[in-house]
Amino acid sequence: MQIAPSPSAPLDVLGLGNAIVDVLSYASDELVEELGLVKGAMTLVDEERVEYLYRRMGPAREVSGGSCANTMAALAALGARPAYIGRVKDDQLGRVFAHDIRAAGVTFRCRPASDGPATARCLIFVTPDAQRTMQTYLGACVELGPEDVDPELVAAAGILYLEGYLWDRPEAKAACRKASAIAHAHGRQVALTLSDPFCVGRWREEFRELVEREVDILFANEAEIKALYEVGSFDEALQAVRRHVRFAALTRGAKGSVVVRGEEVHVIDAAPVERLVDTTGAGDLYAAGFLYGLTRGLELGACGRLGSRCAAAIIQQFGARAERPLGELVEEPRRA
Amino acid sequence: MQIAPSPSAPLDVLGLGNAIVDVLSYASDELVEELGLVKGAMTLVDEERVEYLYRRMGPAREVSGGSCANTMAALAALGARPAYIGRVKDDQLGRVFAHDIRAAGVTFRCRPASDGPATARCLIFVTPDAQRTMQTYLGACVELGPEDVDPELVAAAGILYLEGYLWDRPEAKAACRKASAIAHAHGRQVALTLSDPFCVGRWREEFRELVEREVDILFANEAEIKALYEVGSFDEALQAVRRHVRFAALTRGAKGSVVVRGEEVHVIDAAPVERLVDTTGAGDLYAAGFLYGLTRGLELGACGRLGSRCAAAIIQQFGARAERPLGELVEEPRRA
Repeated sequence: MQIAPSPSAPLDVLGLGNAIVDVLSYASDELVEELGLVKGAMTLVDEERVEYLYRRMGPAREVSGGSCANTMAALAALGARPAYIGRVKDDQLGRVFAHDIRAAGVTFRCRPASDGPATARCLIFVTPDAQRTMQTYLGACVELGPEDVDPELVAAAGILYLEGYLWDRPEAKAACRKASAIAHAHGRQVALTLSDPFCVGRWREEFRELVEREVDILFANEAEIKALYEVGSFDEALQAVRRHVRFAALTRGAKGSVVVRGEEVHVIDAAPVERLVDTTGAGDLYAAGFLYGLTRGLELGACGRLGSRCAAAIIQQFGARAERPLGELVEEPRRA
Repeated sequence: MQIAPSPSAPLDVLGLGNAIVDVLSYASDELVEELGLVKGAMTLVDEERVEYLYRRMGPAREVSGGSCANTMAALAALGARPAYIGRVKDDQLGRVFAHDIRAAGVTFRCRPASDGPATARCLIFVTPDAQRTMQTYLGACVELGPEDVDPELVAAAGILYLEGYLWDRPEAKAACRKASAIAHAHGRQVALTLSDPFCVGRWREEFRELVEREVDILFANEAEIKALYEVGSFDEALQAVRRHVRFAALTRGAKGSVVVRGEEVHVIDAAPVERLVDTTGAGDLYAAGFLYGLTRGLELGACGRLGSRCAAAIIQQFGARAERPLGELVEEPRRA
């Protein structure tokens, strides 16, 4: 199986995900512990809890987020043609989300909801080790369903990219299944990111089946892939992936990443980082770099290295939307 | 006149200003020119214009702002006891503003407006030279008036700090005059920042009179003080200040600052900056460091040096609210 650029596809990638505005704040480890948060993970919370946690949070800054939306915004910044489907409300944060994704260069046609819950927020507590702990109030995202999937848009994109977080809502999951069927019917590729180890734990059997039967390209980090196969080491997870998944890009933080496609295995170093600030969006940006490489027909190692450079860029700033253009990362640096 | 710490004042500084959420985005010089913006200045815009400019702006991040509010937030981060008066609406950005200022440690008691215009926004275009160009939609700020001035709060603060931007609205100006009268009646000091050279141009005569008669401590940058006295050089402005103003701290960007009190003149170097990112908030943070020093009874040179260190910290990040604690800046670094 060779994934080549799709000159016939008017769009490179279509993403389907939870449309969220991030509320980022530095926090002490003591606060994270006192609030009883699961450090490093994404936890879903209701409105009352998110209000309580916000009152306890320090001064914050608001940056558009949403894992898949971050990947689409980065793809646009790299020079690709992405589109995005996700639900916001017609409120101030919904307008912020829609503005930011369109201004980034992503096609975004979804109409904001005029009533119902507010636009989703994710409180992100960034601890001194640059680790991020996320508390998500899904708000308007709970309205995402199959009716939001525009068949024309799916058919137009070379790759459909789904986020595992969508499995937490049955309607959103149905939207993914619908989009995936349309994509395959048009000869497009379907990519999935596992999103979070606890999310994987909640939907392990479904994800395993999905990954074997429907997913052409799997993105996962070490914790997620170990959770998927319930194994204790990355090596065991890697063996399971090789048996069950056609094509996977597995990220390992500072240890770099491993790309597996059949017999082909590429071990890729992490790109150098001068000053680690906030790991929010590391996986999202890796996926963006990798997908960009695929759509441009780069060889797998080059795709992985571009993913690493994008991840390294985003963790040296606050939030998962790049402050600076990413285009210069596309060129592979010369070796010293 | 010696300004000493006020152990009898339960609050160190009370700020009165426009409560604004900043919307920050990198922009090219070409875009700033094409949109016809006055580079480096603050321009007031109506709702239609702010919507238009927002559509033309790149992906942004939202950070609480407002010149005076930035100064109060930084004072709290330094360890002082500030309070703030400003108007927001009860909308998502109003809740963001109120959260951030309280979470920073600033006393903020104003009730948000339940109707009327939305919470104020300031679109900030940050060009590659790190200069910021601001387009402000005042929104709910237009409702600030004398009735918002809590006499108890004014009486409780050692220093009342006013921002010149308030002169653009007659009701806000009346609030300043009321607060100033209460402060002086309680033996407190009144400080004013001139805010913006164009704002000075709009209200030159009033500012001159105010500065001579009512203001105990004046903050201004080079462009503002030259605009106040309609002179072409900083030296001429300095001579005018010495004749007319009791006590002034004048900032000059990379050239440092000059503090003048009667016969006493201190010339202070700018603090070193490794990586200039965004000059938004430089003056606000200088004022915070300076005021902190005053409330702690530091000598004037030390106040100015602390102001410089705070300004240097804020221009190495995006936005005017410090991402990192400022407390460590209070200690004067040892000379190499």
